[in-house]
Amino acid sequence: MTDRSFAARHIGTSTADQDAMLKAVGQPSLDALMDACMPALIRSHDGLNLPAAITETEAQAELAALAAQNTPARSMIGLGYYGTHTPAVIRRNVLENPSWYTAYTPYQAEISQGRLEALLNFQTMCADLTGLPVAGASLLDEATAAAEAMLLARRAAKRSAGNVFAVDRRVLPQTLAVLKTRAEPVGIDLAVADLTDPAAIPDGAFGVLLQYPGADGTIHDWTPTVEAAHAAGALVAVAADLLALTLLTAPGDVGADIAVGSTQRFGMPMGFGGPHAGYMAVRDSLQRQLPGRLVGVSRDAADAPALRLALQAREQHIRREKATSNICTAQVLPAVMAASYAVWHGPEGLRGIAEHAARAAARLAASLEHAGTTLAGGAFFDTVTAHVPGRADTVTARAAAAGVNLHRVDADTVTIACDETTTDADLRAVCDAFDAPLADAAPIRIPVDLRRETPYLTHPVFTAHHSETAMMRYLKRLADKDYGLDRGMIPLGSCTMKLNAAAEMEPVTWPEFADVHPLAPADQTRGWQTLIDQLETWLAEVCGYAAVSVQPNAGSQGELAGLLAIRAWQHARGETDRDLCLIPASAHGTNAASAVLAGMRVVVVACDDDGNVDLADLDAKIARHADRLAAIMVTYPSTHGVYEATIVEVCAKVHDAGGQVYVDGANLNALLGWAKPGRFGADVSHLNLHKTFCIPHGGGGPGVGPVAVAEHLVPFLPSDPMSDEAGPVGPVSQARWGSAGILQIPWMYLRMMGAEGVTAATASAVLAANYTAARLRDHYPVLYAGAHGLVAHECILDLRELTKTSGVTVEDVAKRLIDYGFHAPTMSFPVAGTLMVEPTESEDLAELDRFCEAMIAIRAEIDAVASGAVAVEASALRAAPHTAAVATADRWDRAYTRTEAAWPAGVAAAKYWPPVGRIDNAWGDRNLACTCPPIEAFGE
Amino acid sequence: MTDRSFAARHIGTSTADQDAMLKAVGQPSLDALMDACMPALIRSHDGLNLPAAITETEAQAELAALAAQNTPARSMIGLGYYGTHTPAVIRRNVLENPSWYTAYTPYQAEISQGRLEALLNFQTMCADLTGLPVAGASLLDEATAAAEAMLLARRAAKRSAGNVFAVDRRVLPQTLAVLKTRAEPVGIDLAVADLTDPAAIPDGAFGVLLQYPGADGTIHDWTPTVEAAHAAGALVAVAADLLALTLLTAPGDVGADIAVGSTQRFGMPMGFGGPHAGYMAVRDSLQRQLPGRLVGVSRDAADAPALRLALQAREQHIRREKATSNICTAQVLPAVMAASYAVWHGPEGLRGIAEHAARAAARLAASLEHAGTTLAGGAFFDTVTAHVPGRADTVTARAAAAGVNLHRVDADTVTIACDETTTDADLRAVCDAFDAPLADAAPIRIPVDLRRETPYLTHPVFTAHHSETAMMRYLKRLADKDYGLDRGMIPLGSCTMKLNAAAEMEPVTWPEFADVHPLAPADQTRGWQTLIDQLETWLAEVCGYAAVSVQPNAGSQGELAGLLAIRAWQHARGETDRDLCLIPASAHGTNAASAVLAGMRVVVVACDDDGNVDLADLDAKIARHADRLAAIMVTYPSTHGVYEATIVEVCAKVHDAGGQVYVDGANLNALLGWAKPGRFGADVSHLNLHKTFCIPHGGGGPGVGPVAVAEHLVPFLPSDPMSDEAGPVGPVSQARWGSAGILQIPWMYLRMMGAEGVTAATASAVLAANYTAARLRDHYPVLYAGAHGLVAHECILDLRELTKTSGVTVEDVAKRLIDYGFHAPTMSFPVAGTLMVEPTESEDLAELDRFCEAMIAIRAEIDAVASGAVAVEASALRAAPHTAAVATADRWDRAYTRTEAAWPAGVAAAKYWPPVGRIDNAWGDRNLACTCPPIEAFGE
Repeated sequence: MTDRSFAARHIGTSTADQDAMLKAVGQPSLDALMDACMPALIRSHDGLNLPAAITETEAQAELAALAAQNTPARSMIGLGYYGTHTPAVIRRNVLENPSWYTAYTPYQAEISQGRLEALLNFQTMCADLTGLPVAGASLLDEATAAAEAMLLARRAAKRSAGNVFAVDRRVLPQTLAVLKTRAEPVGIDLAVADLTDPAAIPDGAFGVLLQYPGADGTIHDWTPTVEAAHAAGALVAVAADLLALTLLTAPGDVGADIAVGSTQRFGMPMGFGGPHAGYMAVRDSLQRQLPGRLVGVSRDAADAPALRLALQAREQHIRREKATSNICTAQVLPAVMAASYAVWHGPEGLRGIAEHAARAAARLAASLEHAGTTLAGGAFFDTVTAHVPGRADTVTARAAAAGVNLHRVDADTVTIACDETTTDADLRAVCDAFDAPLADAAPIRIPVDLRRETPYLTHPVFTAHHSETAMMRYLKRLADKDYGLDRGMIPLGSCTMKLNAAAEMEPVTWPEFADVHPLAPADQTRGWQTLIDQLETWLAEVCGYAAVSVQPNAGSQGELAGLLAIRAWQHARGETDRDLCLIPASAHGTNAASAVLAGMRVVVVACDDDGNVDLADLDAKIARHADRLAAIMVTYPSTHGVYEATIVEVCAKVHDAGGQVYVDGANLNALLGWAKPGRFGADVSHLNLHKTFCIPHGGGGPGVGPVAVAEHLVPFLPSDPMSDEAGPVGPVSQARWGSAGILQIPWMYLRMMGAEGVTAATASAVLAANYTAARLRDHYPVLYAGAHGLVAHECILDLRELTKTSGVTVEDVAKRLIDYGFHAPTMSFPVAGTLMVEPTESEDLAELDRFCEAMIAIRAEIDAVASGAVAVEASALRAAPHTAAVATADRWDRAYTRTEAAWPAGVAAAKYWPPVGRIDNAWGDRNLACTCPPIEAFGE
Repeated sequence: MTDRSFAARHIGTSTADQDAMLKAVGQPSLDALMDACMPALIRSHDGLNLPAAITETEAQAELAALAAQNTPARSMIGLGYYGTHTPAVIRRNVLENPSWYTAYTPYQAEISQGRLEALLNFQTMCADLTGLPVAGASLLDEATAAAEAMLLARRAAKRSAGNVFAVDRRVLPQTLAVLKTRAEPVGIDLAVADLTDPAAIPDGAFGVLLQYPGADGTIHDWTPTVEAAHAAGALVAVAADLLALTLLTAPGDVGADIAVGSTQRFGMPMGFGGPHAGYMAVRDSLQRQLPGRLVGVSRDAADAPALRLALQAREQHIRREKATSNICTAQVLPAVMAASYAVWHGPEGLRGIAEHAARAAARLAASLEHAGTTLAGGAFFDTVTAHVPGRADTVTARAAAAGVNLHRVDADTVTIACDETTTDADLRAVCDAFDAPLADAAPIRIPVDLRRETPYLTHPVFTAHHSETAMMRYLKRLADKDYGLDRGMIPLGSCTMKLNAAAEMEPVTWPEFADVHPLAPADQTRGWQTLIDQLETWLAEVCGYAAVSVQPNAGSQGELAGLLAIRAWQHARGETDRDLCLIPASAHGTNAASAVLAGMRVVVVACDDDGNVDLADLDAKIARHADRLAAIMVTYPSTHGVYEATIVEVCAKVHDAGGQVYVDGANLNALLGWAKPGRFGADVSHLNLHKTFCIPHGGGGPGVGPVAVAEHLVPFLPSDPMSDEAGPVGPVSQARWGSAGILQIPWMYLRMMGAEGVTAATASAVLAANYTAARLRDHYPVLYAGAHGLVAHECILDLRELTKTSGVTVEDVAKRLIDYGFHAPTMSFPVAGTLMVEPTESEDLAELDRFCEAMIAIRAEIDAVASGAVAVEASALRAAPHTAAVATADRWDRAYTRTEAAWPAGVAAAKYWPPVGRIDNAWGDRNLACTCPPIEAFGE
């Protein structure tokens, strides 16, 4: 590692800094530190077989050579992926702006008002267009959103309803594939039928799914089907294209209960499959059933409107094995993009774009019909399906030769999708491929009774920012409200908020990567294939596994894929009774939720006083459930931030009992280069590329959660959703390579770091956590520690005793940290009443010290309360965070000074003013409002 | 113009807004407004022959096709342009960040502290590396900096010194070419000699210029020459490569008085010639002679350190015809990039980069010498000159075929420059071209007595931000201090702060444009050539001229080029006595300064009470000076913001007297599409591409100031600085196409707007100004108006009477506007005691109204002072702007409330906190400090 190496830039602490920190920790060297804290048994000594590190310029040049091997043609494939013009003002000011992409999930709502407002715009957009009043803050993609709709329908349907989920035959093929994956483990029977005939709804249906427009482009009046479904006690979900809904009757207006879909074509590049924001909207009575995140309006300490995540009690991290969904990550950045696209174009602009696509399709249809080609149905929006008996291959090939990709459905059928980007030249190329002359413009093919009459996007935000100057300022005002890594440390335990380097991020918007349809012919996507092959190989290597699939587009989906692999392997061996998953009490809530969705029962294993898996309890649980034991899911190092010495023993015990070992990769940042889960006993892991591998958190997504497996599980990796030859485990995401469009980031990271770099990064992260623990131990008890009193890559500060004596809560401390210019550590996970701090390797010593000094100063503030000098209700801690409006109010009658409120020691250089004060979460949940409030609500 | 057109995004006001505004102005339509305010005589009715407008996607696609016609090879040409790795963190967070590039020149220092700090870093870097204590905030390029050094030397040398400027023969050829252009009009004799011989300094030399290292790469101990020059009463300027100075004795340490050069290789792409920041550093006693901008440390109202432009009385806009330089624009954005590069790498990193280049050159030299090639000199830094009798073409061609460009000096000589980016493969390719085997590593060729011993970049800022996380945050903290167009309106009269669209900006960093040496072979730069040809053609068309040269890299250089064209044309006709330039009293100060530098005398023409050129005085001046009359320089519309009805008459009078008419293009934004200066009487204009044509102001540069001429002046456009066949007028910039690297911006603008778009933009800008005037007229007298009481694209608010009655000054109002969330209008230009407001077409109605309402509210504050209710010294006006520190201070004993101070009406959504309070300019000039102050100065 030289001074010119990327690693020296990625790692925040210099060698000199590290020497000083090691002294504070009482270790002579980084190696000694790792030797002291990591059990020798798990240590890997065979190094990492990665290409040697290269500089950022060299790595970008190598990646550019791969990009050049992609030769994007014009895409008219459709199937849920459409050409779209990303407005440059949004690309530059959102997608390429660290203020947006380095932010975390908005759990600390007071410092997340900008992206919460953007998400509220997203929700409003989805609700308006679907005609259903409650929309969530985005789901992972359309197919998984449809799966969530299926599960929602089952739990919301009458108890008397049966076990069947009926799917119209026009559903997108990848959606059907994902539904199959998801239905079987939870015992749902899928039935595919032509549901334009209401009588085709099968008996026992608790729900139906309709595609609108259908995969073949056709549109239908679904009213009779909806009425029949409702009469049969079933809920109706409609997978609807939001752009189409600017012209078509809204699902809510024909009685649908749920709408799902993708917002990709609202300005997000196709990206070879993702990431894009899926959406779900529901009728009012289903709001508490909604999976994923929901932004709602509440009020702050000064009674000003303030946004925050609503109804969090629904979410998997709270409900654990009782959760009804394992979704945690949303697709915030793509959702912000989509919402911004709607703000930019407004209702009339969107309608214009939809009409452009519809007119292109109508003209194309007229051309083909004039030439004697039969089309599928006479009513459609932007997509035309042509019957060309025996000629589909020829037509598709001719179009491809002219630079246009079409969708070959089967030997006799070709589908052509128009979109915002379709030009006359495209239409001409398609017509040439069909030997049809291009006809004149023709009326759009939306029947009068399917035409939308209801207004949408009527809130002023969708009309106020149509000039680029206004839009640029709006996006900046929102960004300015938020706290991202570009402002300071986000020491969130378990979240690994490390550097997202500019050199890693830049290739995301290179058009050769961005503008590729996931079903583009293989000879157009060689660069993508090589990139993905290399990345999967490197990821398998660093984790010690046989193979990796990047398909899961969130950690939760990686978990599901991993558990499904275990289950399928066991079933293939005839061990169909194994359906029980052991999960330690300290686990991420998602683990339990995923296990349930994989068709397993969860049995919790206790932790001992040191926070480790209680081996006695483990033995007891294994003994009791041996025949049913499918797997154990453990996180390593544990969520307590400690390298448990017994991990190898735990693995052995489970293996001995015939179970499989799942190691949650959330904490890989404490292992890379030093230990490989695949070598110390695990059979499967998922990796969080948005943690250890530098994909930014995007303000709450996109995440990428590849699944990594040992040799025996390789055949059980997720299948290609578009392949006829599905493997034993179906797809977990709608695209074969999931959120391919951001895999450049981990590729660049590993390419620039090399083995030496990632190894140094791990040790530097462990050092930073131990340094923090050492500096704060005298002020806050550090809850757990491993060998030699050392922690791994994070440490838990125990505030319970302080809370007892002072009344100051972890929330008070978290909010007070905002006044000091920090994002709070993780609150009350994995132990209530604590703060978990993960500094990562990217913070420099000055920032680590600034954080420690803030925490020490806050300890003094707590002591003042505990001593009785200040009542907790009157303290700056309880009143935190302090807005500029509060600190400059004409009246000041507080127990502390304005300076103490707003300018605590050390903040001057990094002063950040939260736009709202402490938010009242309960009030918002009692007065639920999840779309843009009338503008007057924000008046002064 | 459709809703999907770019013009509808560029223009801030919608059709509905414009209808409302027209009503307020009392005009039925935009056409009627233009008819009413613009004299019919100047109206052009032949339209604009521009390609029809296309969308941003289409225009980028067309530009990408041009980019693809550039095939950048590896450049080892050198000659002042070197390969450099732009750190991605700087590219993304500075060069591609509107917070940096949309800001204006930091005249309003309180809201410009971020870029002022970056410029102070730049000055410190230049001062440290050159060993000369006072460095300016950047000049236009190395060659013009050398010309400025020549002029500085003449005015600073002893009166007894002669008229000769001696230039060492190793000077860069483009520098010599520019010196020739600049010396002749002001009567300086240039003498080129081999100044390694001190005796070669010619008699009568007031200054000498040495190149260090020389253009041939050689380095010399200049001490004897410096001593001899000083003994002869001459000043010594050294054109030095800052990167070389990390290894070489500093010019200041060998006694040089002045150092100049380029900072291009500090992270700025070559960009086919520019823009790059030139620099100048001088010894202490010359500080008041420094041309261009100088940032200095002062203090604010709370005694906190605060930065601002120092010694402004030196500058051309103050000194006018007495100015010693016409420089006004600096190269702020490139200077910020260069300074950030130094902050990123620090002293050790820079030294490492220099050593990499030096080692590569040494190895190359050893290889060539082993193969029997003779080199020029044995001591060099990074550049090797090889003697290859008769083989230069062959060698150069062979290297080019291998993808490496070398510099063919003449038939027998080839120069090869190494740099940060040079690889072993490059060296191998060069050696192959010479038929020389690549030798092993060899010691660098810097003799011991030329090795630098003194430290540099010792300020902590150059070592504190070496991790990317720290650097990203530092750049954001700086950006957060500043007010750019991304926050709100910058209604600066005469500056045309309009939208810099993202789609225009993105191509600036496309590598096919950025990574091209200006001397790359023509077959590698076809895309650039086409782009420039098209842009010059379009610019000529919209202004009604025969031809345009984009060479001048600032408006001031465009003025000079235009005047030199007039002068050369007149001289060619034998009219060598014509040396007098008429300039109205209302003109930009730069006009007069440029005239002097073009060898003309300035005679001021009075303005009448309406602000128009006083025709009687004009007649008198013409009559008095008819035989000597060279030209008149007028701005149109006038700097008073009015379409003078007499312009055609003025032109005719001057023409009748044998003079030429120069129309300053500063106010073209009021003409485009409606009138063409080249058609209503002007012979020459310069255009400000950074005003009307959307190049961003970059916080104070780069500007681009093309010169446009009528047919008879075409042969007198500036020459190619590198061509042996110089025309009658030499080059005014060091690169043939000046700041080519940002010409994508105006190209995109014109391509997306088309004739209809630019015409609509002009009328919209005029409407915005008239609307502002109409709304504010009852509160502030509008100083000048033309026909029907209408203004052109800007309006002057006259505060003189209010100042008289209340004591509230224009400065008070300007600073108070910061509290309201605005950048002030232009202060006291062209009339002292007034504010000139130019809203441009890009502001939307909401922002225009917000500004008007702020001005109305301020008027009420002034009235409160005038009425005696508040003393001016105690008013919020005088105390403005209010920092967050002031507004939250524990003690408050002011005559107004905190709310009144910080939250005046309308600011809430756009609240911006200035980082410092009102700055004491005089104190800073009395206590001049122009490098980074000790860190303690900023302590709390």
